[in-house]
Amino acid sequence: MKVLWTSAHPERRSLNAHLRTEGLRALGAYGHEHRESDLYAMGWDPVLGAGDVRPDGAGAGERLFVGEEQQRAYERGALSADIRTEQEKVGWADALVFQFPLWWFGPPAILKGWFDRVLVQGFAFGVRDGHGRTRRYGDGGLAGKRALAVTSVGARASGFGPRGVHGQLDEVLFPLLHGTFWYTGMAPLPPYAVYGADRLTAPEARARVAELRARLRELPTAAPIPYRREAGGDYDEGLVLRPSAAPGRTGVAAHVRADAGRCRGRGAGGLTPRCG
Amino acid sequence: MKVLWTSAHPERRSLNAHLRTEGLRALGAYGHEHRESDLYAMGWDPVLGAGDVRPDGAGAGERLFVGEEQQRAYERGALSADIRTEQEKVGWADALVFQFPLWWFGPPAILKGWFDRVLVQGFAFGVRDGHGRTRRYGDGGLAGKRALAVTSVGARASGFGPRGVHGQLDEVLFPLLHGTFWYTGMAPLPPYAVYGADRLTAPEARARVAELRARLRELPTAAPIPYRREAGGDYDEGLVLRPSAAPGRTGVAAHVRADAGRCRGRGAGGLTPRCG
Repeated sequence: MKVLWTSAHPERRSLNAHLRTEGLRALGAYGHEHRESDLYAMGWDPVLGAGDVRPDGAGAGERLFVGEEQQRAYERGALSADIRTEQEKVGWADALVFQFPLWWFGPPAILKGWFDRVLVQGFAFGVRDGHGRTRRYGDGGLAGKRALAVTSVGARASGFGPRGVHGQLDEVLFPLLHGTFWYTGMAPLPPYAVYGADRLTAPEARARVAELRARLRELPTAAPIPYRREAGGDYDEGLVLRPSAAPGRTGVAAHVRADAGRCRGRGAGGLTPRCG
Repeated sequence: MKVLWTSAHPERRSLNAHLRTEGLRALGAYGHEHRESDLYAMGWDPVLGAGDVRPDGAGAGERLFVGEEQQRAYERGALSADIRTEQEKVGWADALVFQFPLWWFGPPAILKGWFDRVLVQGFAFGVRDGHGRTRRYGDGGLAGKRALAVTSVGARASGFGPRGVHGQLDEVLFPLLHGTFWYTGMAPLPPYAVYGADRLTAPEARARVAELRARLRELPTAAPIPYRREAGGDYDEGLVLRPSAAPGRTGVAAHVRADAGRCRGRGAGGLTPRCG
């Protein structure tokens, strides 16, 4: 399997850097090829701007329409070179790992801006099927790939459990897991989180590395989070759940297939890696 | 009321820029003072790094511990100048408005990095009360302030409703509304969203401006989203909901007070501005 490992931590002696080193070593041991986007080391610019789509400075005085111009520039190969490089890596990969410390309950800005700039319309989403329907949620430009989020958190695990104050992890990460991975067609694996990351003992750190290795071993086979497919019949023309799907339920939890409900409530973020 | 208006759009002729202009005009009409952080215009750097906390280059070879060093630098007034400027504005404000296009179901990177860099430990969170308890969720360094998210979305409103495919808006924005605003003690007002933002007619745009003005008129009085206070008795020592709070419920929805449940299911994101 070909794996793109994208990481976002400013310190090369951090726990995150250690997990990355050990994660890449594990991929090698399991016979996977890998490539890397170490965003801080690359000096990645996360700020989407006119330069993304007008690298030659053309049209500098004209109003910028972000989505449309991203698509047009993508289609004529005119996105800025740093974006094209990342898109080539994404296209190469069968699986994408995103590793980051959880800052304000989401990815650091440098990684958020990788999504903003790299996953443009026409490449990752906004592509149509043979019937003219836009492929989205379970289908899209990145269909067939798998995606795993690996995150470190200062807080204890209990706070991210089904009734923890910070919110159940997979629901807190809904914009990433459902809104980014699943939206573009990637199969979102249950996230792996290291809790209490600020104060791990050496044995605890070794245990977390072992857990990460186990998750990476299962990368090709683990069951994804069973989100509903947009084209699977559960949504009406207004993109609202039909009464027969998750009857009476509302909120982000309703988008996880009910027939997989028996799998919930265990493991990280209330989901087990082998659920489904 | 003193209002800090933070915005994050790369194009000064966009719908977002129009909403910002009209929003600031409305604040003036209602007798509020305002200051601004127009992040693209400022050339704001969203990438948290060693330079934030070691502006003089001291300790350049040493391992960076992000949270601790942010707090130490804050306490000795040694954060980089751009961060101190923003913190001074936050300290000045009674209410904070964050206006942004919704990219990948969250703020653009330039705004995410404003939270990453400005809301440091010791300033926005990690402050203790007289009993040595950390003030968090409904209390914290920014207690007493109000916060309003104003966002624009290409998709239709139905997709962000209680059963819409994109997820109920206030739950999709949970990392911002609960994990950032409420975590630091700010009262999170129900977000205001402009849907179908890519294809508004002129009359529709005028209607959205009128709605925004109405929301800004209510800025001092609107009922916040009724999230539970960490110190309010609903959470145990592990920061897990006690059995008596939202019995049997899990996920992010359980952190909205049940006694406000009758208010849900109407208005933007399933919450009404006057709910509570």
